[in-house]
Amino acid sequence: MKEDFKARLDEFKEYLKNIEYLQSASSVLYWDMRVGIPKKAISYRGEVLSYLSGEEYKLETSLKMKEFIDYFESCRDLDDITKAMVRNAKKNYERTMKIPEKRYKEYTIEQAASEAAWEDAKAKSDYSIFKPHLKKMIDFNKEFIGYWGYRNSKYDTLLDFYEPGITVEKLDKTFGELKGAIVSLLDRIQKSGVKPDCGMFHKKFTKGRQESFSKYVMAKMGFDFDEGRVDESVHPFTINFDNRDVRITTHYYENEFRSALFSCIHEGGHAIYEQDIPDSLKGTMLACGASMGLHESQSRFYENIIGRSRAFWTYFYPEVKRRFPEFKDVMLDEFYKGINAVSPSLVRTEADELTYSLHIIIRYEIEKKIFDDEVDVDELPSVWNKKYKEYMGIEPENDAEGILQDMHWSGGSFGYFPSYALGNLYGAQFLRKMEKDIPDLYKEIERGNLDIVHQWLKENIHKYGSVYKPAELLKKATGEELTAKYFIDYLNKKYSEIYNL
Amino acid sequence: MKEDFKARLDEFKEYLKNIEYLQSASSVLYWDMRVGIPKKAISYRGEVLSYLSGEEYKLETSLKMKEFIDYFESCRDLDDITKAMVRNAKKNYERTMKIPEKRYKEYTIEQAASEAAWEDAKAKSDYSIFKPHLKKMIDFNKEFIGYWGYRNSKYDTLLDFYEPGITVEKLDKTFGELKGAIVSLLDRIQKSGVKPDCGMFHKKFTKGRQESFSKYVMAKMGFDFDEGRVDESVHPFTINFDNRDVRITTHYYENEFRSALFSCIHEGGHAIYEQDIPDSLKGTMLACGASMGLHESQSRFYENIIGRSRAFWTYFYPEVKRRFPEFKDVMLDEFYKGINAVSPSLVRTEADELTYSLHIIIRYEIEKKIFDDEVDVDELPSVWNKKYKEYMGIEPENDAEGILQDMHWSGGSFGYFPSYALGNLYGAQFLRKMEKDIPDLYKEIERGNLDIVHQWLKENIHKYGSVYKPAELLKKATGEELTAKYFIDYLNKKYSEIYNL
Repeated sequence: MKEDFKARLDEFKEYLKNIEYLQSASSVLYWDMRVGIPKKAISYRGEVLSYLSGEEYKLETSLKMKEFIDYFESCRDLDDITKAMVRNAKKNYERTMKIPEKRYKEYTIEQAASEAAWEDAKAKSDYSIFKPHLKKMIDFNKEFIGYWGYRNSKYDTLLDFYEPGITVEKLDKTFGELKGAIVSLLDRIQKSGVKPDCGMFHKKFTKGRQESFSKYVMAKMGFDFDEGRVDESVHPFTINFDNRDVRITTHYYENEFRSALFSCIHEGGHAIYEQDIPDSLKGTMLACGASMGLHESQSRFYENIIGRSRAFWTYFYPEVKRRFPEFKDVMLDEFYKGINAVSPSLVRTEADELTYSLHIIIRYEIEKKIFDDEVDVDELPSVWNKKYKEYMGIEPENDAEGILQDMHWSGGSFGYFPSYALGNLYGAQFLRKMEKDIPDLYKEIERGNLDIVHQWLKENIHKYGSVYKPAELLKKATGEELTAKYFIDYLNKKYSEIYNL
Repeated sequence: MKEDFKARLDEFKEYLKNIEYLQSASSVLYWDMRVGIPKKAISYRGEVLSYLSGEEYKLETSLKMKEFIDYFESCRDLDDITKAMVRNAKKNYERTMKIPEKRYKEYTIEQAASEAAWEDAKAKSDYSIFKPHLKKMIDFNKEFIGYWGYRNSKYDTLLDFYEPGITVEKLDKTFGELKGAIVSLLDRIQKSGVKPDCGMFHKKFTKGRQESFSKYVMAKMGFDFDEGRVDESVHPFTINFDNRDVRITTHYYENEFRSALFSCIHEGGHAIYEQDIPDSLKGTMLACGASMGLHESQSRFYENIIGRSRAFWTYFYPEVKRRFPEFKDVMLDEFYKGINAVSPSLVRTEADELTYSLHIIIRYEIEKKIFDDEVDVDELPSVWNKKYKEYMGIEPENDAEGILQDMHWSGGSFGYFPSYALGNLYGAQFLRKMEKDIPDLYKEIERGNLDIVHQWLKENIHKYGSVYKPAELLKKATGEELTAKYFIDYLNKKYSEIYNL
């Protein structure tokens, strides 16, 4: 029996390895498409990618896969890794197999049409072009929830795909607290009369200098250039072909000092997570971050908590001055306040650290209404605009900078947005524990010892890949459940100091 | 019946398309591995590539493939394209299926060991390290020829894989004539006392300037940058992901003006061939050059016949002077003679236009001896060295610059080398016909009208992909059979003028 178990497990791993190979190949093809593909090659590349994902789909939903799942579910005392392998494989399997094949095909066709309509609608800033497609994507998802089933809230089922275990109940509580705290802090900031100067960031910073400094910072953070690359694309992203080949992209604006730098630190955070996952998890499909939210916790931790901290720039600012004489008359304090300037804006991807979560909470509240049948697609733009007015005091002048700004909904990705804000909460919880574990944390950072941060994250989070569910991992790393408390404390402390509140 | 035929043909094309998708994916992965992969990612990439080629192998040797072949072979009056599809598919199928699976597996394992041994042997310049592996690769190929069968000469079977239809009989005749002509011309050149100056090429030419000029020339030749790219790698190569995405690589040496430029023109010739193949050949596996020799005919045509011609530089030299002030005191005539300087050397890849074919003929003569059982692996270095002495008057001082210089044999690629020299013969035959069809050919080139050359090649060769066998295509394009005559005439005329013979 034990012999048989081992043989079956090896066979299962060999099988999963093939899926990983297909995913790796697709990732290389996708990366190349974003980074360097010639114009006329795009459509054929789409065909190749669609073939590969079809092959992956076949493996994930085969009879053989079903047999593996059934066999291992019947086994007792599985170790954590095998348990997670089976759990993941089953989730994937059921997510697809519970939907009638015909409907799934119709969905993927509608998905492509919807994405195209969204692009058109955004370019013309005309919600009416996108509306019928959005309605279809919502209806499909509601229908699918019927097949997948749900416990308390229909929306929970969608949340669970991106952040296993997260529920409306938990989010209502944490996001509710967070919203209150941010709205109140923002109000005090706006009444403070303090306005950090950001003019210093808008000189001419050549691409070459930006690139070299960003890479310098990434290397200090712990990004291993023997296991990854930095390239350019229109929108920054991180992708892993395997954990020894993790690539990020950025976009350089020569009239903006912060954009490429902080996108590299952000994507670098994602990348270091992937690079730290051990080779021993190959063939388990667990050699990746534990969830969207946990991934985002790492990127935002590096970008904001570390990368926008005074300690970090105490170390790096002399190097900035050396490389960029443009800052010769700028004091560290001014620089620090400049990179932390709070300014409510309409576009999520351009938001500052403080208001970012409000963008997410607005989307969360709207998605919840959609799946609770409390709002019609006709009303969405006005609901959207009202919330922006209410929480941030600003209102979109058109749909492009309002309801049409993100592409997520056009592809049917509902339940994805909350991960971004969860990342902030997780990050602050990790920080609290890290401060306890490393009493000299900020002194070490001031000395440029970012390795101490990296090793803590590696030991407590990264090395587990996605063996544990987010809540389990959070508990393992910090001993606590999800809470907004620490992130709120962090924000209050940081911004009170910057804005003399 | 006709309905059934059409349905089966569509089904066959769908099937072949899947093989093409896998090949395209593998090509992207391979390209990335040569152009930009991080150091620690290489071994996993190898696994992914091996998985994809395994999947391709399954499709190429499936029962379904056998059924397609049997069905279409039983059909009468097939059009040229379908006929070629079936011919190719069958050739692939039989090449693999005639070998016992066990032996094929052993071969691929030995192949990897042999390639590694060759690399080691070359680094240490020690043939004895490679010898036992070379012997195995030869023995495997001899055994396989037993399964594949042969008509007149065993070596014919190997030649046919790279250059369908070519035989020892044809090569003995044409290569024999060519060898005599080159050896005699070389002798007269060396006695002429003329020695073109090449010092002008060894100044400091920054990469940026070289890159920009090479791309300028490639665009003029007809390379479409919306269907391709130029990147950097250790050794230059051309690869197509599909005919709308054809990439070349080069290597810049800042102390050498000619190297990157002529490698771009050479690879550009390969690439233009691929870019010109029509989309209508997708799904037939015929959307590629007709043979190794024909491919090489295009690259060498552009590199030497066009790219080292006086007419070409009459047009481009003023641009060289504009971009590279280093040439301000160099006359066009000196430049032209410099890029055509003849100098026998030991290494094939560094050979000039005239002596290049001798390197190939030496390898051809040795391969023939090997498969006629006329030489033992022990004797190969001395046979090699003797031939270099006899044909070019120079002798390798060690194995690295002698018998170990090329990697082809280590992977079992016997019969491949002749294609390189066949390319020269084909090229001169095309030139002869082009001169007839375009009376003002050289005047047009002097005016920078390279499009006239490109369109001739496209109409007469490129657009057919590999629908026709090399000999058929040659006949279609020139009305003649393979001959060394025109290439010999071309060499005599060109080099007599340069060396005042």
